Amino acid sequence: MNTHDKHDGGIARVTDVDVIDIRFPTSRELDGSDAMNPDPDYSAAYVILRTDALDGLEGHAFAFTIGRGNEVQTAAIAALRDHVVGLPVDALCADPGSVSRALNGDSQLRWLGPEKGVMHMAIGAVVNAVWDLAAKRADKPLWKLLADAAPEWLADQVDYRYIEDALSREEAVALLTRGKEGAGAREEHLVAQGYPAYTTSPGWLGYSDEKLVRLARQAVADGFTQIKLKVGADLADDVRRLRTAREAVGPDIRIAVDANQRWNVAEAIDWTNALAADAPYWIEEPTSPDDILGHAAIRKGVTPVKVATGEHVQNRIVFKQLLQAGAIDILQIDAARVGGVNENLAILLLAMRYGVPVCPHAGGVGLCELVRHLSMFDFVALSGTTEDRVIEYVDHLHEHFKDPAIIANGHYTAPLTPGFSSEMHAESLATYRYPDGAFWAADLAAQEKETNR
Amino acid sequence: MNTHDKHDGGIARVTDVDVIDIRFPTSRELDGSDAMNPDPDYSAAYVILRTDALDGLEGHAFAFTIGRGNEVQTAAIAALRDHVVGLPVDALCADPGSVSRALNGDSQLRWLGPEKGVMHMAIGAVVNAVWDLAAKRADKPLWKLLADAAPEWLADQVDYRYIEDALSREEAVALLTRGKEGAGAREEHLVAQGYPAYTTSPGWLGYSDEKLVRLARQAVADGFTQIKLKVGADLADDVRRLRTAREAVGPDIRIAVDANQRWNVAEAIDWTNALAADAPYWIEEPTSPDDILGHAAIRKGVTPVKVATGEHVQNRIVFKQLLQAGAIDILQIDAARVGGVNENLAILLLAMRYGVPVCPHAGGVGLCELVRHLSMFDFVALSGTTEDRVIEYVDHLHEHFKDPAIIANGHYTAPLTPGFSSEMHAESLATYRYPDGAFWAADLAAQEKETNR
Repeated sequence: MNTHDKHDGGIARVTDVDVIDIRFPTSRELDGSDAMNPDPDYSAAYVILRTDALDGLEGHAFAFTIGRGNEVQTAAIAALRDHVVGLPVDALCADPGSVSRALNGDSQLRWLGPEKGVMHMAIGAVVNAVWDLAAKRADKPLWKLLADAAPEWLADQVDYRYIEDALSREEAVALLTRGKEGAGAREEHLVAQGYPAYTTSPGWLGYSDEKLVRLARQAVADGFTQIKLKVGADLADDVRRLRTAREAVGPDIRIAVDANQRWNVAEAIDWTNALAADAPYWIEEPTSPDDILGHAAIRKGVTPVKVATGEHVQNRIVFKQLLQAGAIDILQIDAARVGGVNENLAILLLAMRYGVPVCPHAGGVGLCELVRHLSMFDFVALSGTTEDRVIEYVDHLHEHFKDPAIIANGHYTAPLTPGFSSEMHAESLATYRYPDGAFWAADLAAQEKETNR
Repeated sequence: MNTHDKHDGGIARVTDVDVIDIRFPTSRELDGSDAMNPDPDYSAAYVILRTDALDGLEGHAFAFTIGRGNEVQTAAIAALRDHVVGLPVDALCADPGSVSRALNGDSQLRWLGPEKGVMHMAIGAVVNAVWDLAAKRADKPLWKLLADAAPEWLADQVDYRYIEDALSREEAVALLTRGKEGAGAREEHLVAQGYPAYTTSPGWLGYSDEKLVRLARQAVADGFTQIKLKVGADLADDVRRLRTAREAVGPDIRIAVDANQRWNVAEAIDWTNALAADAPYWIEEPTSPDDILGHAAIRKGVTPVKVATGEHVQNRIVFKQLLQAGAIDILQIDAARVGGVNENLAILLLAMRYGVPVCPHAGGVGLCELVRHLSMFDFVALSGTTEDRVIEYVDHLHEHFKDPAIIANGHYTAPLTPGFSSEMHAESLATYRYPDGAFWAADLAAQEKETNR
């Protein structure tokens, strides 16, 4: 008997889509503070796809937000429910692209984007939940499911609409076919050595210089060869903090700086150049993620500092143009911003086509857990290299995940558990559900009491 | 006694933000059908700002959607409530830019965009409601409030972040100061003659050729000098329909065609050129609104047909680049897509700075009512001309508005009622509130009955 079917041997279907508003009170520790986001409460609009298969497997995923508005994000995911409930699970998992196309193709919902913002992140969450379920059913971690897949099948997972001028299906198949050469040896290497990481933990704006130095030295001792500092609030502070960090880590450790979109074009050029004496490796999000031509101008103005962006880039169409315009040196995918694994496949292929290294954004809630699968697939079966490639690592909130990101000697360990590593512990979900989970119920009651004093 | 204060003479404040899900069953008539949107149910996520001022005035506005997902849009507006309730009304109306900045500056909500999609349209709705209230309190139609305002004050209503490389505050003041020259005479002309319109009513994809011919001839008889056809579903059909329309209206009437984002870049060029024999005036939304470089390539490839876009362009940053890249001949603002009047002021100024005519998108629910105010301000006190400028007109759903768009001899009549013309009749709100208004309650009950048969 196939446990992927129902108890009566019939075809298993998606029976429900649970959507849960999960919030962590991270703002109270100034973890995650930067020039644009002084007080984030890392949150997840969390999805569970349930089926009536005997295997009992569920697809888990989420959109990441930073607090207020997570209820808007959950409403957006709920709006997709009718597209998914009732779908046959085997067919869905055999072609996650089918649901990606259906969700993006709902013309009424498309009006709310198109392919951007709240609605697009909702689609990404549902699509990622399907991939989690598909990988669990295939009994493989997602990176290996992707790396083992046939080039033609992977190429068919991509929507070429609006990117065909930069990447055709034929080119995608060729890139993926070439990517397969030597994949076996790279997979062994990956499982043995992991994938290079860098850490942002020392560099939050809210931290003192002492904490910065301590955490920077700790990062080097832990085997990281790159760290990142947040900048953009005060130039004199940034000059001092970068100098302080440089003295702490020495000349051979790369220090990236990250402005979180604080600047206009001219300001970005001036500010970055004012930091040049201490050799920042890249300037991240110097301006609006929408400003392709602005990034191109900044890149010209800050050489040899590299320009990086992507965590807020809304979709493959903007990434395509950043590459076409020669606007970035480093492309930063995010696992939960765009339309899920399918669109990230398109973006990885575009990056490969233009020869730009991908260094994913991570941190937040669960972004480290998810995005490592995409980079590891890229290493094993697409770009074939980790040269100049690092995945961001931030040491927050991993304890809530069943298959947490693990770092050893500055490298992400390859996850071996089947799925997308996107599933949180049931207890975490119950505790941090907003506003009625155990933590929030107690916290809001205490706030109420305080107010009434 | 100042009726803008409270009954006790104290300072009036915003007391509540009502948010109402309004949907019209337009899909049943194929009104509004195009190649991307076959069955829209024109909808409004409707806002009412209430105050405790004696004058009893309310600020009304809405985000426009096409059906499903309108509940996500209303949730997004509700998420802004805490930023507005309690604000002193005099100060708010004296500087609507203050609330625009506060809403865009909420870092947690910003993560959900930034400045795009559901969250940005929600901000636009609230900001527009503030302008409606401000104009009512000033006892002027919005276009006149703007046209009468001092250039420095208007320039301060604009957020220059991310557009300063294309438009500085100083340049804005200079453009607005020059725009004042001769404004009095243009205001008289506007009130006497109105503002040129074009009509899309003949050209919906779902209409038969006979209906197309009849409505196209009617449009010319009604004084319109431009009509528009939807294209992009089937090339042979489009060639026939454009030929049919051209024969119906003759060589002197402009016929715009609108693909509603259906094409990739190469396809857009080929398809548009295949229509060239019947001289389309502009090709609208040939591809994704996000594809600045794609529009630039299309524009080069379809000369002399003009390229137009904007109804789905998410914000001033993308408009800036469309202008910088020379990607469009016609800029189409939409009153309810971007962050409200303040951001549309920025976009009008950018268009003026680059010498590109603005031909607003309208139709849907109430978009005609709103956007005419922006074009009329532009004519009286910014560009000073209506040459090559027309506002879209579609004859749907105007009966639900207290101050509906009125067309005479192919021109929009200047509205003279105080406010932004954004207020619907209370009876319309009660009837079309989803799902519990009178229309939907009866309709859903009938559907239920049908299902249970």
